[in-house]
This record gives sequence, C-alpha cells and structure tokens, in this order.
Amino acid sequence: MTRTIRLGDDGWSIQILDQSALPREERLLRLASLDDAAAAIRDMKLRGAPLIGVAGAYGLALALRADPSDAGLERARSVLLATRPTAVNLRWAIDDVTAHVAHLPPKERSPAAYARAGAMADDDVAICRRIGEHGLPILRDLAVTARRSPLQVMTHCNAGWLAAIEHGTALAPVYAAHAAGLALHVWVAETRPRNQGHLTAWELGRAGVPHTLVTDSAAGHLFSRGQVDVVIVGTDRTTRGGDVVNKVGTYLKALAARAHGIPFYVAAPGPSIDWTLLRGADVTIEERDPAEVGAPPGTPVSNPAFDVTPADLVTGLITERGVARASVDGLAALYPEKA
Amino acid sequence: MTRTIRLGDDGWSIQILDQSALPREERLLRLASLDDAAAAIRDMKLRGAPLIGVAGAYGLALALRADPSDAGLERARSVLLATRPTAVNLRWAIDDVTAHVAHLPPKERSPAAYARAGAMADDDVAICRRIGEHGLPILRDLAVTARRSPLQVMTHCNAGWLAAIEHGTALAPVYAAHAAGLALHVWVAETRPRNQGHLTAWELGRAGVPHTLVTDSAAGHLFSRGQVDVVIVGTDRTTRGGDVVNKVGTYLKALAARAHGIPFYVAAPGPSIDWTLLRGADVTIEERDPAEVGAPPGTPVSNPAFDVTPADLVTGLITERGVARASVDGLAALYPEKA
Repeated sequence: MTRTIRLGDDGWSIQILDQSALPREERLLRLASLDDAAAAIRDMKLRGAPLIGVAGAYGLALALRADPSDAGLERARSVLLATRPTAVNLRWAIDDVTAHVAHLPPKERSPAAYARAGAMADDDVAICRRIGEHGLPILRDLAVTARRSPLQVMTHCNAGWLAAIEHGTALAPVYAAHAAGLALHVWVAETRPRNQGHLTAWELGRAGVPHTLVTDSAAGHLFSRGQVDVVIVGTDRTTRGGDVVNKVGTYLKALAARAHGIPFYVAAPGPSIDWTLLRGADVTIEERDPAEVGAPPGTPVSNPAFDVTPADLVTGLITERGVARASVDGLAALYPEKA
Repeated sequence: MTRTIRLGDDGWSIQILDQSALPREERLLRLASLDDAAAAIRDMKLRGAPLIGVAGAYGLALALRADPSDAGLERARSVLLATRPTAVNLRWAIDDVTAHVAHLPPKERSPAAYARAGAMADDDVAICRRIGEHGLPILRDLAVTARRSPLQVMTHCNAGWLAAIEHGTALAPVYAAHAAGLALHVWVAETRPRNQGHLTAWELGRAGVPHTLVTDSAAGHLFSRGQVDVVIVGTDRTTRGGDVVNKVGTYLKALAARAHGIPFYVAAPGPSIDWTLLRGADVTIEERDPAEVGAPPGTPVSNPAFDVTPADLVTGLITERGVARASVDGLAALYPEKA
C-alpha cells in the first residue's frame, strides 16, 4: 500500500493503514460505512491533519451512499465532526464536500462526494510531492557545503507519509533525496509524550533510509558534537508572518540550530498557512490530557501539545510553490492571492 | 528518615531509603554486610554521586567488621568497585577510606572506616546546606525583580535530597527558600529516558513545595510564554573553565534560558569540579543502553546520558563557598588552593 488511505478494489469501500497497530504490525482496515469511518478517526487509527480531512470526506461519501437525503447528510456531518472536535482540517474537508454536494439531487450526492474526496487526496499528494522536489536541492547543496556523507538530518514528531496521504511533508525532501541517491542519515526525536518518533523511525526503516531514534533531550548533545547538518520539521499551523506552530519540542531544536549555525527548515503546505494570523505568540496552545505523560499517580502534570518557533529562527518554509522566507513578505511573494 | 543513608539504631548496620521503590513506596532497607551494600549500589537502590560514594564507604566498614585482614580489605574493594565501574565518587570514596585504614592494625580498621564514612556523609550534608544558603538570596532577589509570586523555578533530572545525603544540590536553594517562606513553584522536567523527574516531583511533594511535571520538550513552550524566572540544575562534573557536564537535556534548557534572558544557575559542589579539565567539549559522553529508551524492537537507538553546557551560558555556579562566575578566574577565586 503506497497511500495511507485509498478506494478499495470494489470501487466504493475505503482501505486505510491502521496506524494504531504501528509500528508493531502493518494492518489494513476496510471502512464500509459512516460508523466505520467515524470510529477510525475517533480511535486514531489514522492521524495527521490532511489524512483526517480526507478520511472525513470519504466518510461523508460512505454515509451518502447509504442515505443521500438532507437528513442523512446532516446526521453524517455531525457524527464525523464529533470525532475530533478540534481538527481544523476535518471541519474544512467536511464543509468542502458538503458545499459540493448539498445542491445536487440525492442520487448524485454520493458519487460527487467520492470524487471530491479523491481530489482532496490527490491534491495533498501533489503538494507533498512538490515539497519534496523543492526540498531536494536544499539537501543536495548542504551535502556539498557540509562535506558530509551521509548528510545528517534531524526531525521531530511524524511529518511523514503516515501523517499525509503519500510522501509526507518534512520527510518528502528526505524521501526525494534518498530516491535521488543522496546518502542521508536521519536523527529521529522520540517526541514525548506520544512517541510519534516511533512512527517516523518505522516509516524511514520501511523506505530504507538510515536513521537513529534519540530522546528529545539528546538534540542538544548532537548539535554540540557537530552531528547535525540540517533540521526539517513539519507544521500544524504557520502564521502569515512565518511563525511556526508545531509539536512541542520543535522550538528547542530551532534554538539549538541557531546557536550552532545549522539551517532549520519547515515543510509548510499552503493549506497549513493561517492567513488570518500574524503572530504565533497569539496562538492558544492546546493543553492535552496529563495522563499521556504517564507520571506516577498524584503528580501534578502539565502537557502542552505544541510550541511556537518564531519566524526569525526559520531558515526557510518549504512549500509546494517553492521555498519562502519566513516573513510576511516572503509568504506574500509565493501566495500573492492570499496576502 | 531525613537522610538517604544513616547508621542503624544498632550502631553498626546501615539504613537506606530504597530508591528503586520510589515514588510508589517509601521503603527502608537494612544493609548488614558487604554483599548487601554491593547489591544496593549495583541494583540502584541508591543513586546520585555523593550517595553512592558514602554507601561504598559504609560497605567497606561492614566488610572490615566481618574480615579486617588485608585480604578482606582487598576483596571488599574489588567487590564494591565492580558495582558501578564508571562512578568516580565511588572509587574516590573507597580509595579515601582505604588510605585511612590500611596502615592500621586489623581490629582498628572497621571503626576507622565507619568514622570516615560518617565524616564523608557529614561533609556532603554541610556542602549541600551551604549551597542552599548561597542560593537562597538569589531566589529571594529574583522574586523581587521578576515581581512574581510564586517564583517560577525550572529544574532538570534529580539533583535533590535523593541524589545526596540531605538537602540536595540544585534543590537545596529551593528547600532553603521554601523554609524561609518564599513562595515558589518548580517546573520539573521528566528527564527521559530514566524519568528522574518523577523522583524530583516526589521529593518536592513530600516537602510541600508546589511543582508541576512536564515533558523535557515542554521547556521551550514555558520559556516562550514567560513561565520561567530561573533555572537551577545540578552537575555531574564541572570543568575548571566552568563548562557543565550534566544529565542530557540540560544544554537545551540553558540555550532557551539565554534566548529569553532568564538566569541559569548550576549547583556545583566543590568535589564535582574537575580541576584537571578545561573544556567540556573534551569530555567523552557516556552512551547508555539503548533499551532504556524503550523504542520498538529493531529500532536503531542512540542514548547519550549527558551533555555539556558551555560556561558562557551559565549565570553562576552555586558552590559551598559562594557563587562563582563560570570561568577559570571565577572558580580560581573561590578555590585558590586548587587553581
């Protein structure tokens, strides 16, 4: 399976890779109903913003296949939106499909929803592929200037294939470089408390890219011993000023990269740019369940899920349109229609 | 029990707090023989450089009580040294006791070893108490200048009572300030992969000091949201130039403190200063068992145990003789006899 989600061979059911079984087991799941899709999203059998959005869109298509009425559409929307209430992409995808099908006669709704979900998946694949293409020359040039083989790349969390449909974001340049024959080694931070680094290590291993998992704290040591040539991470949200909201721990890596003169790149798909927001400091950071941290019972715990890396620590934003400076002007130059 | 190790009420056995049962259970252990002492050290029922040293010294006293011959002394030395081959304090303590007893007639050896071990413990307690006294005014002044109550302190790993005999090093100023009525709150980093932060949280809770455990990665977020007024950590080894070797993850906190203009202090007992070494960059960092990280089977893992924080990121070294600048001159001024 080369995509994390795809249409089944029967032409209507949906096949996904069950990420809750990874990295222990590579298990495929068949989604044949609204409830199957909702359960898969809710139980985190798939994760990553674009993937959740596409899964929601296919969930709507499955629902409309069974009940294409206005009431059926409304019920499907509320079931899907309730699965991950804070997932922005999920709401966006469901609203987008709804806008494409609500005006149609009931019997045309499900096919239109399938088409829209498929187009969304294709769009994401194209965006990720282009991020890989724009990132590849950066890695190739660094391998020359750093005079190192393999080139030492550091990443955080999972911004790979598993968080998208294909290629991934931060890992797209890595996969592109690997495919082009550039020798690489990736330092994978385990990414407490949910250990998404384990997924990244699994992905890289499956693709044959040499890698080593380290604790999040080990980054400082690796930088100070000259073991890192470049950092590439993903982003959950980038402001129009270039501040990067990403998995907690990203900011410390950016500070260390700056202190050691190492480039720090962020793979930022256009849809992840929040044009309504200038400053990352204004973003409310989600505080997640303290139980995730696994502290002894009774221990007071705080569990912020993200942090903000200010634009001035970001060497460049690798988008599907090219590499932008992390600034209002840098992003506006690539996305003039948004700025 | 106010000390992590002490002479039993029978006047000869040794009582320790079993740290391998913490924070689940507060269990005391009685050591009545060389083998008891060796097992306690080897199985990490006690940890922390000074504590291991004192335990080794008492182990020698117990051994000499059973067999005070030259052969008995030699055997006890090798059994104890084999428990934690890389623990510098253990070797130092055993050599020190040996030097005090080897020239004595056999029947005087065990009492002399007990006396020496007790003196070592008292010395450590006095050093830690004085670190607390020298650190207290720093915290008091910061509470005024930061205009914050409670004062927000961040620490890493466990450099508390449990790593010493009493008071601790990094936590000594915290305990002194708490006793003096200064309102404090401590951010405790979990300290992967061995989670010594759980021990720190347990200690602070037992002492009634408000605290919150966070992942190691959360430090960046806390700094960027203005939630930290001062960092205090311990040190495994400080060079005569003021570079600080401490638990991996310390360096990233020092970088973040510098970026945000927050003072970064290191509690550095005189015996932890390595007068033979100028640069921390020359220290070989111990690579520990990858299994500690708990990655899925087959994942390549690197597990460096320490990192080096360069002197220029250290606001001050809190020693038992006062607060030193982290530099050759700063340390030489406090320890002229060593410099």
